[in-house]
Amino acid sequence: MNAPVGGGALSPITRSERATRARAAFDRLGGNIDALVLFDDQYIQYFTGFVFSPTERPIALIISPDGERTLFVPRLEREHAQALADVERVADYPEYPGETHPLRLLLEELAAQGIGRHGLGVDHDGYPPVMGYVPLPLSGITSVLVVGVTVQLDAQMASKSEHEVALVRESARWGAYAHRLLQDGTKVGLREDDVVAVACGAASRALATELGPDYRQRNKWIRGALAIYRGQIGAASALPHALASNAVFQRGDTLVTGAGADVWGYLSELERTMFLGEPSQEQKLFFGHMLALQDICFAAIKPGASAASVDLAMRAYVDEHGLWDHWRHHVGHGLGQRIHESPFLDRGYDGVLLPGTILSVEPGLYVPGLGGFRHSDTVLVTESGIEFLTNYPRDLRSLTLDA
Amino acid sequence: MNAPVGGGALSPITRSERATRARAAFDRLGGNIDALVLFDDQYIQYFTGFVFSPTERPIALIISPDGERTLFVPRLEREHAQALADVERVADYPEYPGETHPLRLLLEELAAQGIGRHGLGVDHDGYPPVMGYVPLPLSGITSVLVVGVTVQLDAQMASKSEHEVALVRESARWGAYAHRLLQDGTKVGLREDDVVAVACGAASRALATELGPDYRQRNKWIRGALAIYRGQIGAASALPHALASNAVFQRGDTLVTGAGADVWGYLSELERTMFLGEPSQEQKLFFGHMLALQDICFAAIKPGASAASVDLAMRAYVDEHGLWDHWRHHVGHGLGQRIHESPFLDRGYDGVLLPGTILSVEPGLYVPGLGGFRHSDTVLVTESGIEFLTNYPRDLRSLTLDA
Repeated sequence: MNAPVGGGALSPITRSERATRARAAFDRLGGNIDALVLFDDQYIQYFTGFVFSPTERPIALIISPDGERTLFVPRLEREHAQALADVERVADYPEYPGETHPLRLLLEELAAQGIGRHGLGVDHDGYPPVMGYVPLPLSGITSVLVVGVTVQLDAQMASKSEHEVALVRESARWGAYAHRLLQDGTKVGLREDDVVAVACGAASRALATELGPDYRQRNKWIRGALAIYRGQIGAASALPHALASNAVFQRGDTLVTGAGADVWGYLSELERTMFLGEPSQEQKLFFGHMLALQDICFAAIKPGASAASVDLAMRAYVDEHGLWDHWRHHVGHGLGQRIHESPFLDRGYDGVLLPGTILSVEPGLYVPGLGGFRHSDTVLVTESGIEFLTNYPRDLRSLTLDA
Repeated sequence: MNAPVGGGALSPITRSERATRARAAFDRLGGNIDALVLFDDQYIQYFTGFVFSPTERPIALIISPDGERTLFVPRLEREHAQALADVERVADYPEYPGETHPLRLLLEELAAQGIGRHGLGVDHDGYPPVMGYVPLPLSGITSVLVVGVTVQLDAQMASKSEHEVALVRESARWGAYAHRLLQDGTKVGLREDDVVAVACGAASRALATELGPDYRQRNKWIRGALAIYRGQIGAASALPHALASNAVFQRGDTLVTGAGADVWGYLSELERTMFLGEPSQEQKLFFGHMLALQDICFAAIKPGASAASVDLAMRAYVDEHGLWDHWRHHVGHGLGQRIHESPFLDRGYDGVLLPGTILSVEPGLYVPGLGGFRHSDTVLVTESGIEFLTNYPRDLRSLTLDA
């Protein structure tokens, strides 16, 4: 398989699109909110393109009702923010802990701008505890009403633009390429870390070449193009979120992969269940059930359908086939810049699927001692149904490795 | 330089030490708290050894006043928690969002155990917003007093056991090894990512061999042994926390590195300022100031000294030499399992340095257009002064690369 050179070369989200997002941020909010104060790095990246790793030093984004953005950073980050953030203004405070608490200086900044007098829309009541930062609730140091607005922000983020969809589609192409390298490189006796390093290294180099010299890591979870096992090898693949490494491949292993790529900050999700050598009857049985479950979920995703209905369709099959011992989680989740986000394909999620939403579809079955059985594909909800953004073989034959 | 094989082979923190931590967790708390509820993955790892990546599905650790631990997880994580967490009990809830909010089920679990009737000590009032999780404050669904206890937990974590110190010391040996490979591999015209991949790959393979087949990633920030540039190459090194990659080395570059290793979950911090080719007079000048600043900080760290006094000593030198244009941040921070934690070597930090505390010492100077100037060493506060846990050349000659 060749690297997906050619069709790509997409550009980052434009300054103009980020500015439009900031202006639209108030559309879903109540009229009494006259400033947004956001601390989460993912919201800040969404509205400004500024990428950073949260530390004990608070960073906050202020958005005024007319969409004007001020990024509030420690002195340490001033030049970094000025160079990279799509904002109208960078304000800074000396240091944390420092002589004056940064959140008091943040309130002074709001007062100086004459906003946030009536209500503050926040993602969190103050900066959250990170690396030894001692929380100070905003509601404790201002008399202004402090209102959580993550539900509204997440609804905005779930509605993807054409540019965002194109970036996720491109990410999926690179994820598939890395996955092919991972699949082809996996052999009995090799060590997980070595196989993963080769696949990720080659795919990431090709991606960096394709995206050109301006390419920088912009996604929090993925660097370059990636295809991994996360320790989900053999019996350990029955642990859906095992954080492990260093396993050695053995004949008969059930394998669960994960692949994606950071294309200008956007990612995708591709996961496959594979077998190292001819699968046993039991492995085939669960693979077949898993494939049927995923097909049912694909069919259930339609514009206007409730997110819960997709999960309920999956659960009906689990019921019918007596598979509850092997059930572990709901069907999937939104994604884009974030690796997981709402809407959740879960019977407890209250909401309807809208065109422009991107979802992972990944019902799984888990059999202690035997392994995990899960494919994940990334799909776009369209006006009429779904469009696959990931394209990679799903069938047993294609996913059985020589051993 | 050979890999530090031989002196190592340390074992993970024992089950008994983690159980002792859980029993000691109430020592610093007020008497009205009769249950701890912790959501942060770092606190949970500290008390249980369970390593996980937070998602929208809440995970919580309950500790009873006699140190009994219950890990509360989504169904998805049950077997994973049972296999890897040092706890007396694993309890699980079906899914998030699910039919009943997980935090309501968490309160039911507390009630079933007959604890948390008087006061709940928490790191956060409910699970924080992560990946589309919609916050529900614990204080909003219980009449029991909810009290933040991160200051007390952080004081406990700052007091390192001999085992913890040994793990950080071992991490520093591996960080130095990776750093030597990085330094030796850096040449004009090469690409950052390629040089970093070679150094990290070789050092990580050697570390995995040394620590044996049970080795798994246990640190949130570092995988294996690592030495990187984080894009701090040439003029970009003037941005202390640049999150970037893909630069090409050029003659005359100022370079700022970062190195460490994950040894059973514990890390260390080694950073060096280097030059690619003979440094200019200006590069030499700032290198000299930086070295003098770090020496002043080393001398100021003594048991019983205030954390603030170390920062004030650094600031006095900056004052005296007119360097405020180049100042960006305080002197350093605690570390161990976490990459940053309290105490902070900051004039605004209220606390005294105690023997057994591990600190980074990293005063820096930043010159736009020229680069950043920062060494970081990891030291242990002893009964009489400091012990260096990092050991790597600090002088100009040793850090000037051929070009």
